[in-house]
Amino acid sequence: MNKPTSLDNVRIVLCQTSHPGNIGAAARAMKTMGLSQLMLVRPKKFPHAEAEAMASGATDVLDRAVVCDSLQQALTGCSLVVGLSARKRELSHELVTAREAASQVVQVAASQPVALVFGTEMSGLSNAELIQCQQLAMIPANPEYSSLNLASAVQVLSYELRQAALAPVLQDNATFPLAGHDEVEGFFAHLEETLVRIGFLDPLSPKRLMPRLRRLFARARLEKEEVNILRGILKHMQTPR
Amino acid sequence: MNKPTSLDNVRIVLCQTSHPGNIGAAARAMKTMGLSQLMLVRPKKFPHAEAEAMASGATDVLDRAVVCDSLQQALTGCSLVVGLSARKRELSHELVTAREAASQVVQVAASQPVALVFGTEMSGLSNAELIQCQQLAMIPANPEYSSLNLASAVQVLSYELRQAALAPVLQDNATFPLAGHDEVEGFFAHLEETLVRIGFLDPLSPKRLMPRLRRLFARARLEKEEVNILRGILKHMQTPR
Repeated sequence: MNKPTSLDNVRIVLCQTSHPGNIGAAARAMKTMGLSQLMLVRPKKFPHAEAEAMASGATDVLDRAVVCDSLQQALTGCSLVVGLSARKRELSHELVTAREAASQVVQVAASQPVALVFGTEMSGLSNAELIQCQQLAMIPANPEYSSLNLASAVQVLSYELRQAALAPVLQDNATFPLAGHDEVEGFFAHLEETLVRIGFLDPLSPKRLMPRLRRLFARARLEKEEVNILRGILKHMQTPR
Repeated sequence: MNKPTSLDNVRIVLCQTSHPGNIGAAARAMKTMGLSQLMLVRPKKFPHAEAEAMASGATDVLDRAVVCDSLQQALTGCSLVVGLSARKRELSHELVTAREAASQVVQVAASQPVALVFGTEMSGLSNAELIQCQQLAMIPANPEYSSLNLASAVQVLSYELRQAALAPVLQDNATFPLAGHDEVEGFFAHLEETLVRIGFLDPLSPKRLMPRLRRLFARARLEKEEVNILRGILKHMQTPR
């Protein structure tokens, strides 16, 4: 069985993890499914002996883990960012099951970097973190007790990714490269600034305008060329003629 | 969502588990997927504070766990017994993937008790234990490192059981009405007219600009409210300020 190379393009991003044992257990879960890119955003304690112990035979994944100051840094260059959530959130992202997410992630990861983002043990992803995700994935669980351990959630997603990577893939028509996370964020910053400048967005009373626009473009999954076109339009909106 | 009653007929059987923390973590994994019948065959240490701690909100599953002297006792009355293994075994059992096993288990469990049997952390199921199983299930894993933590393996199997027991019906967050065809066309006409007016689109040499923008918004499937926001932005682009 060939190694599914798409898995090399998948980052597992753990945000502000409290227990180092969970980081180690997540590394082990990843390695059993052939994943190797672990990104840690401001972990409470890392490196740590408990992480080493729980990683068992996957200490190589821990050793290569990248510690980041911000989620944005961890997502640089990613063309698809999927946030994991145990519950529905007020921000209405596209919501998919773990299995559906895995299938889409593997398709994009065939050619471009992709990230799966996990929040803290206690409260999951913050809204500020969620807004950087394009899609929200849920593990269908017992509605009376849906609290999977962090490493268990990583295990389920990694498992689904491997099953998706091993399955025969239908080629999608879309062959245009998707925009990276930083390019999309650059567009949003440019858009917001422009909307303020033309008087459509009142910075003192922004309401839900930017979240609504983010949601729209998150669904579309912008391509590089489309970001260029949209920013070209924004530039023309600012130039006095 | 109705509770899938077939899951009440599924026993998770852990044989001679060494670490009580794994028993607790397995109980938690089970409960997140709606399983509740835990059987422990000669556990090394049980009950134990570490089991309680790792069970988190699933201590009820631990409290009702049945400790057995033999695997045979744990399997009494079961119509289907599936053993979990990380590798092929000399005994030529029917070998199925975790997903295939889950589908069969759920079918039988609709009317009769079924057991999934997990071996020790170090060496899995012994041949004497395996011979009591009718089927051998494997979690497809990285051939270079296939050693899932015991509770992680219970998590993956419980997850697959739940997915098999109920076709996942996630309610999508998006409850906003989509824009009608005429509304979307009205937006495109407004957009094109505006892009010409601000000098971004040359009507004598339009190239592929409008088709590209149509494609982008087609992917997003615009909602009514989003069309209103976008047209509001277009209006502000035209108003001399």
